[in-house]
Amino acid sequence: MNVLWIMADQLRWDYLSCYGATHMETPNLDWLASQGVRFNKAYVQSPICGPSRMSYYTGRYVRSHGSTLNGAPLRVGEPTLGEHLRDHGVKYSLVGKTHMTPDTAGMKRLGIDPTGTIGALMSECGFEVVLRDDGENPTAHPGRKSAAYEAYLRRHGMEGDNLWEEWANTGVTPDGDLVSGWMLENSAYPARVSRDHSETAWLTTCGIDYIAAQGDQPWLCHLSYIKPHWPYMAPAPYNDMYSADDLPPVNRHPAEQDTDHPLLREWLKSRISRNFSRDEIRDTVGPVYMGLIKELDDQLGRLFAFLRETGRMDDTMIVFCADHGDNMGDHWMGEKDLFYDCSARVPLLIYDPRQQADATRGTASDALVEAIDLAPTFLDAFDAPAKPHILEGRSLRPILHGTPAPWRDFCVSEYDYATRPARRVNGIDQADARLVMIFDGRWKYVHVEQMRPLLYDLETDPDEIVDLGGDPRFAAQIDRMKALHFEWSRQHHTRITRDPAAVETATDRGAPPGVLIAYANRSEVDSDGRIFPTHVQQ
Amino acid sequence: MNVLWIMADQLRWDYLSCYGATHMETPNLDWLASQGVRFNKAYVQSPICGPSRMSYYTGRYVRSHGSTLNGAPLRVGEPTLGEHLRDHGVKYSLVGKTHMTPDTAGMKRLGIDPTGTIGALMSECGFEVVLRDDGENPTAHPGRKSAAYEAYLRRHGMEGDNLWEEWANTGVTPDGDLVSGWMLENSAYPARVSRDHSETAWLTTCGIDYIAAQGDQPWLCHLSYIKPHWPYMAPAPYNDMYSADDLPPVNRHPAEQDTDHPLLREWLKSRISRNFSRDEIRDTVGPVYMGLIKELDDQLGRLFAFLRETGRMDDTMIVFCADHGDNMGDHWMGEKDLFYDCSARVPLLIYDPRQQADATRGTASDALVEAIDLAPTFLDAFDAPAKPHILEGRSLRPILHGTPAPWRDFCVSEYDYATRPARRVNGIDQADARLVMIFDGRWKYVHVEQMRPLLYDLETDPDEIVDLGGDPRFAAQIDRMKALHFEWSRQHHTRITRDPAAVETATDRGAPPGVLIAYANRSEVDSDGRIFPTHVQQ
Repeated sequence: MNVLWIMADQLRWDYLSCYGATHMETPNLDWLASQGVRFNKAYVQSPICGPSRMSYYTGRYVRSHGSTLNGAPLRVGEPTLGEHLRDHGVKYSLVGKTHMTPDTAGMKRLGIDPTGTIGALMSECGFEVVLRDDGENPTAHPGRKSAAYEAYLRRHGMEGDNLWEEWANTGVTPDGDLVSGWMLENSAYPARVSRDHSETAWLTTCGIDYIAAQGDQPWLCHLSYIKPHWPYMAPAPYNDMYSADDLPPVNRHPAEQDTDHPLLREWLKSRISRNFSRDEIRDTVGPVYMGLIKELDDQLGRLFAFLRETGRMDDTMIVFCADHGDNMGDHWMGEKDLFYDCSARVPLLIYDPRQQADATRGTASDALVEAIDLAPTFLDAFDAPAKPHILEGRSLRPILHGTPAPWRDFCVSEYDYATRPARRVNGIDQADARLVMIFDGRWKYVHVEQMRPLLYDLETDPDEIVDLGGDPRFAAQIDRMKALHFEWSRQHHTRITRDPAAVETATDRGAPPGVLIAYANRSEVDSDGRIFPTHVQQ
Repeated sequence: MNVLWIMADQLRWDYLSCYGATHMETPNLDWLASQGVRFNKAYVQSPICGPSRMSYYTGRYVRSHGSTLNGAPLRVGEPTLGEHLRDHGVKYSLVGKTHMTPDTAGMKRLGIDPTGTIGALMSECGFEVVLRDDGENPTAHPGRKSAAYEAYLRRHGMEGDNLWEEWANTGVTPDGDLVSGWMLENSAYPARVSRDHSETAWLTTCGIDYIAAQGDQPWLCHLSYIKPHWPYMAPAPYNDMYSADDLPPVNRHPAEQDTDHPLLREWLKSRISRNFSRDEIRDTVGPVYMGLIKELDDQLGRLFAFLRETGRMDDTMIVFCADHGDNMGDHWMGEKDLFYDCSARVPLLIYDPRQQADATRGTASDALVEAIDLAPTFLDAFDAPAKPHILEGRSLRPILHGTPAPWRDFCVSEYDYATRPARRVNGIDQADARLVMIFDGRWKYVHVEQMRPLLYDLETDPDEIVDLGGDPRFAAQIDRMKALHFEWSRQHHTRITRDPAAVETATDRGAPPGVLIAYANRSEVDSDGRIFPTHVQQ
C-alpha cells in the first residue's frame, strides 16, 4: 500500500463539479470521486494555512499542537505523522507546500542541529523533502526561496532576480507591460510564465517523477499544490477561460453588513473585506480563481493518467483535500479565516484501492469529518499502530469500507486572530483572541471569547446569512452547543508520553514492585500476592 | 538574590503551629512565617507527587505539561524553570526529590543523548543535580537507586543490600526484631537508622553544604525533602514523641460513607481507605506522621540557624511548601489524590529579604495561590523575563510587597485517576478518568467526567463533610462553578513558541515584507506605505 496525498491550497469545495458546481467542470476530480468516497462534511482544524496544515501533519487539534498562528513554529518534539510512519518503515515524502516554521529556538535549547538528520526532518514537519515549495515571495522568505522552482524556471530560460515573482506572478498586458500579480486589478492578465512551466504544472511533473522513481518501500507522497491560493494569476489560457458571467452568484446579503457583532463588524472593515465586496474586484479575480482550479484539474488529469498507466491504481490510496477555502466575496469578505462553509469546509475525496472499498466507490458520505482524521487513516492503511494518546482524529476506514461504526457528533475548528487588527480595535487581549467552531451537521456555533457567539442553522439557512447568536429564541440551542464546546475543551490532549496499554498495565499492577502502599501488615501483603521484603519477618 | 526553595512531601498545612495547629509545635517554621508571608489558600496543581511537581517545576498546569500520572514522563522539550533561570545566569540546583521521569523515548526520537549536557538536564527536569533522592525503594527503581543516601549510610557503617529500606525504613522492636516500615502496624517502632543519619537530617546537611559552597553566581537551591511521605517510620525519639492522644480529632462523618457518588463510593472501598478508616491504624500512624514533621522542623531549625549565622538572610528568598497533603483518615481516606483541604491545600511560607517586603513580615494572605505561581515569582525575584506565553502562574511579588494588584478569582487542581481501580469498576474510559477542582475561596467544585460533580461550601462546612453536588438546591452554584471550569478550559496553554512581543509585532506589521494581500492596485499599496515590487509599474 502507498498513499498519494494531494492537497490544494485555498480551494473551495463548491467550485468542483463533483460537489455540485455547475459553473465549471472538473472532470478529473469528478473521476477520482467516482472511484472513491466524496466527503460532504469535511472541515479543517483551522481556516488558515499554517495551523490547518500543522493539524493535518500531526493528526492533532490546533489547541494541542500549539501552532495557532501562521508562522508560529511547531514546537520541537511535537510528534508528526512522518515520525509515526517512518517508525513503521514508510517513506514519507514532500513535494510542495507545508507552511511549516521550524522551532529553531526550541532546537537550540535542546541542542539539536537543524541540519542533522533528525533536525532536518523536524524542521520540515517530519517530511523527507523531495522539494519544498511554499509559493513564497523570496522577499518575504529570503533565507528559504522557492529554490527548486527558481532553478527550474532558470533552466527553462527565464531570467531575473526573483523568478517566482517576476514570471509566475507577474502579468503581461496586451501592450506587453509587466504588472504585479499581487494587485487584484491585474488578475486577469496572463501570467508571464507559460502553462507548461506554471507552478501547478511543475509540481505535477515533480509528483509524477517521484512516484515513477519509487521501488518496493511503501511510501506516502504529499503532493501539495500552491494554487488556487493568491497571488491570483494564471497562465494563458486559464487567465481568461472564464468570465464574470460564469461566476456563481455571490453569497451575501445587505443584512450581514448591519451586524451588531463587534468582531464581524471590524472584520468587514478590513481592506480584504472591502476589496472583495466590490463587484469589479470579484468579477476580475473570481474567473481567474476558476481558471487556476481548472488548471489544477487538468494537471491532475495528467497525474491520474500516469497512475492508471503504471498500474499504481492497484496499490495506491489517493486522497485529495484542501487546507481551507476562499470567501471570494461571500459574506462581504475575501480570503479565509472565519468558519463559513466557503472557508472552513473543504473538498475531500478518498480513493482506497482495496477490494473492501468496492462497495463505496462513487458514493458520498455525510459523516462529520475533520482534517485530523487523515493521519489515523494513513496509519491504518499501512497497518501501523494507532497511537490514540497522540492522534486525536479517527481512521476513516469504516466509512471507506462501508462498515458502519459509531462516529463523532460534532466537529471542531479553531482560529487565533491575535495578530489581526480586529483584535486591537475591540480591546481584546492577545490571549483572548480565540474563536472555536462547533458544527453538529446542522448548527454551526462559533465561540468568540469575550463576545457573544455566532450561530447559524444550516438546515433553514444553508447560505449562513442569518446569525442567530444574539437571538434569545436560540438560547437553548446555544447552551447545547456550548456544552459540546466544553466537552471538547476538557479532553486530554497533552498526555502523549503514556500510551493506553501502559495505562492499563499500571492499573493492573498497582504500585511498582517493592512499593507497598497502605498495607497494615504482612498478611494483607501476602493475600494480595505482593512480594514482602526479605530482610524482615513482619 | 538567591532562592532557597524548600519542599516537604505529603505535608498537611494544619499540622504546623503557624497554621493554627495546637496539637504540635513547629517553632522553626513558625519563625519563618514570622519573617515573611504565610499563604492561607495555596493549592497544588494536582494532589499527587509527580504531576504536582511537574507543575511546580514548569510553572504550568497539569493539562499543559501533560505529565498527568505519577511516572508519566515529562515530554521532551517541555520548558522548565531551570531553563528559564539558567538562560538568565542563575544556577538551578537540586538537593533531594523531584519525582521526575525522563521522556527517554522522546529523547531517542529527537536524537538527544540522555547523558549529554542537555539530555542530562532534561532528564532531571532542568535541575543541575547536586543529589537526587526520591525516597525510593531500590527494588522499584533498580536503575536509579537513592545512590547518594545509600553511599552515605554505608560510609557511616551501615550494611546490607538496600540501605534505604533496611535502615531508614525498617523498624526495630523492643526485642530487637527487624520489621518493615512499609507496614502501617509497624509505624511506631523506631527506625533502625538514628536521627543523625535519617534522610531528613542528611538532606539538611547536604543543603547546608551546598549553600556554604556557593560563590558569586546567583543560585536557586531546591531542597526537597522526602518526609513526612510514607513509609511512615521515624528515628528515635520522633517515633514515640507523640501518642494517639496528641492527634487532632479525625475529620470524618458516618454520612460520608453513605455517599451516592460512584467515584467516592469506590474510593472508600480501596485498601487505602479501609485501612486509614481503622482507628488503630490512624492512632499508630498519625503520631509517627507528627514525629516526622517535628523532625523536619528541628532540622529546618538547624538550617535556618546556618542561614542567620552566615548572613544569608540578607540575600536569600526562602520558600517553604509541600507537593500535597495527606488525608490521614479524614473523610475515611488515607494517602492523597482527591481535593479535600487535607490533600490539595498546602502550606506556603515565603520570606523575601528585600526591604519592600518589610511591611508584610509576619502577615498572612488569603489570596488564592497556585503552585505554579512560584516559578514566575522566582523569575521575578531574579529580574528574569516573565514569559507569560509559557508560564501560567503569576508572580507573588505584589502580595509579598503589599502592593495590591488584581488577583485570580479561582484556582484549579487536576487529577488523572486512569490507573486507579475505581476507574474500571465504574466502567470509565482511560481518557475520561479526569477530575478538576475549581475553588473560589468559598465553594469547592470538583468536575468528575461522566458523573455528577462534587460541591462543598467551605464557609458553612469548613470540614468538607457535606457534598452538595447532587442537591438540586445548589444547581445555580454548580452552574457558576462549571462556567469557571469552562473559562479555564478554554485558555491558551500550548502556544509556547510565540511570545507576546512577537504577536504584537506581527499585529503591527501585517503580512511579511513582499507579501501584498488583497490590494486592488498600486495606489492602495502606496497609501499603506508598503513596498511595491520594483520590476513592474502597476
